[in-house]
Amino acid sequence: MSREECAELDAADPLAALRAEFELPGGVVYLAGNSLGALPKAAAERVGEMVREEWGRGLVGSWNAAGWFDLPRAAGDRIAPLIGAAPGEVVVGDSTSVNVFKVVAAALGLRPGRRVILSDLDNFPTDRYMIEGAAGALGPYEIRDVTAATLAGALDADVAAVVLSEVDYRTGARYDMAETTRLVQDAGAIMIWDLCHSAGALPVELNACGVDFAVGCTYKYLNGGPGSPAFVFAASRHLAEARQPLSGWHGHAAPFAFEPSYRPAEGATRFLVGTPPVLSYGGLMASLDLWEKADIADVRAKSVSLTSLFIRLVEERCPELELVSPRDPERRGSQVAFRHAEGYAIVRAAIDRGVVGDFRAPDILRFGFAPLYVSHTDVWDAADVLADVFETGAWRDPAYARRLAVT
Amino acid sequence: MSREECAELDAADPLAALRAEFELPGGVVYLAGNSLGALPKAAAERVGEMVREEWGRGLVGSWNAAGWFDLPRAAGDRIAPLIGAAPGEVVVGDSTSVNVFKVVAAALGLRPGRRVILSDLDNFPTDRYMIEGAAGALGPYEIRDVTAATLAGALDADVAAVVLSEVDYRTGARYDMAETTRLVQDAGAIMIWDLCHSAGALPVELNACGVDFAVGCTYKYLNGGPGSPAFVFAASRHLAEARQPLSGWHGHAAPFAFEPSYRPAEGATRFLVGTPPVLSYGGLMASLDLWEKADIADVRAKSVSLTSLFIRLVEERCPELELVSPRDPERRGSQVAFRHAEGYAIVRAAIDRGVVGDFRAPDILRFGFAPLYVSHTDVWDAADVLADVFETGAWRDPAYARRLAVT
Repeated sequence: MSREECAELDAADPLAALRAEFELPGGVVYLAGNSLGALPKAAAERVGEMVREEWGRGLVGSWNAAGWFDLPRAAGDRIAPLIGAAPGEVVVGDSTSVNVFKVVAAALGLRPGRRVILSDLDNFPTDRYMIEGAAGALGPYEIRDVTAATLAGALDADVAAVVLSEVDYRTGARYDMAETTRLVQDAGAIMIWDLCHSAGALPVELNACGVDFAVGCTYKYLNGGPGSPAFVFAASRHLAEARQPLSGWHGHAAPFAFEPSYRPAEGATRFLVGTPPVLSYGGLMASLDLWEKADIADVRAKSVSLTSLFIRLVEERCPELELVSPRDPERRGSQVAFRHAEGYAIVRAAIDRGVVGDFRAPDILRFGFAPLYVSHTDVWDAADVLADVFETGAWRDPAYARRLAVT
Repeated sequence: MSREECAELDAADPLAALRAEFELPGGVVYLAGNSLGALPKAAAERVGEMVREEWGRGLVGSWNAAGWFDLPRAAGDRIAPLIGAAPGEVVVGDSTSVNVFKVVAAALGLRPGRRVILSDLDNFPTDRYMIEGAAGALGPYEIRDVTAATLAGALDADVAAVVLSEVDYRTGARYDMAETTRLVQDAGAIMIWDLCHSAGALPVELNACGVDFAVGCTYKYLNGGPGSPAFVFAASRHLAEARQPLSGWHGHAAPFAFEPSYRPAEGATRFLVGTPPVLSYGGLMASLDLWEKADIADVRAKSVSLTSLFIRLVEERCPELELVSPRDPERRGSQVAFRHAEGYAIVRAAIDRGVVGDFRAPDILRFGFAPLYVSHTDVWDAADVLADVFETGAWRDPAYARRLAVT
């Protein structure tokens, strides 16, 4: 496969025009969009307008006039079609961590008497920590660790809820959402999916799979900006009964009636809590405009093409790297991970040469492929730089010696 | 008191120069800074730079390179001197609502066996709702409503925690923090203060008063921008023992070690949860620069002068309005409230004439005086407009008929 052949693939890419909608620094191949998505040009304009016009000139009146108050619902309704949800089932607010607490609490409330929560050992750590916090505070509940292989055997009549990440944050391995959800629900438990590495990376069909609850962040493939608020999905069949204890005024049925007691709002609004961080919705709303120009089936097809090409090129040119991600594209998300004992130094050396991936302890090199702005020639260039890092031994430079990675 | 005499007071105002640091629309007297603070000019620049440079060019590397990861602690350490706290006792993250949940949970954990939480009937509703959520989820605990007058009689050996707002969001009435904290702690209970209407409005001395925990927002007198993240204070003597169940990775002792179990960080960092909404810290950090130019004693002196003048002028010229705020400046915050059955229409009519106050159900006209940018001539002009609204009967215009106020 030559760089010219990659350019031909890019010329035929139905998503190619979207790349120009992003502000990408020259000379950089950005393969960390699974950590922080790139800046949509319109997001910079939107946030600027929000600050100068809406805050500066509109002042407090902008809660109504500029629609600030409805941002959590408006953003949720725009994310819904990307994850197979219906209007009113998704809201945007707080962080993924806080949202895990809410949906775990809601799930436990729907399964009184059951005392066990199953959590994947490979769930992102904060999901595990939040489950731990909820289990202690709301219970005690027992947490049992599972893997994809041990899940079926761990399901019994004591299990109230199961929390899994559809796509593993390190390996990119992907659960079969439909089959897993059926398995969990057949055991009478509530299924909660973390979609942090799914939303915007691949088609998600929450309602078609009968999922109960889901959470996910908006700053990875959705490109909402650093720490943009997270989403929470609650299946409409649960909305009348589901309760969560972070019962703040923005989840109240009548937030401005200032009633003395809490009364949950209709719909997923009851999963909102406090005053939303408005400026952090600005980038997200602008980014969601771009998602209306992208067919998620095209996104997935390109993602499979990019990740498969990257695996092929890196395995050809960097035999020192051991593939960690599933080889079958059906079984992986939009990222590729390799293993190497000196992964940290290799990632740093590649970053210095313009290829931005990231490192995850203890030895994982992680590369994310955001199909809206990563091209096949990017993939070729990235593999070329990695090959160069090995051929020249550049990673042995003491400047790349390991320290704690913060991403 | 003439407008000229007001201008003389402004000429002698040590804070006068700060007004030019704010972007205030022409022809507006902004008296809703107790709801949403005005835009510091530097905040617009800072957020723009954050978006274009840090997100757009720095991309994921900005978590380290631009200090995003440390924003919650950096902002907390800058708020600490404004509320009489020490470095490491304050962090900024989540909303006030979520932070109420955390500190109530922490307080209950410090007083095992005690089953009652006292909450002021006049606490802002979301505080009451969050206490309700915590009491149900973590207990059951019993919530008993108190007022300033009934608090002492309600304190007994069953009371675990007392949650009060230093300054009442409607009336501006102010608790005596030192005396009340002593009373509560003498009964063995934990004292939690909500400082939403205190921080940046008046000197707060948390440690001098021996306060246990406090929360507050940053988008009112601190001018952090719409929905900018809230702060949480935990007295250093509690930090080793205090636990809160929203145990997310940003509150972990080693967030990037990706350990399987939660281990709380040192200091107030353990009150952090998920990924911070970075852009919403940008306005706050720029605004906090201004606070380094302001002596909080000057802020308080000007606040007393402004609110006293407003009461005097309005009572002279609008006898229809009944003062709700305490007349003694020592007993009120930086806002003045009046009562009128047609308060909604009067507030709307005044807004249309350039005087922005707000309305709180059922009949409260509320005017906030942010001493960094409100002047004595503003006060004169506001009273003049209110007088005109009554003299002309402007508020009777059907356009001002009541609907649900959202602010």
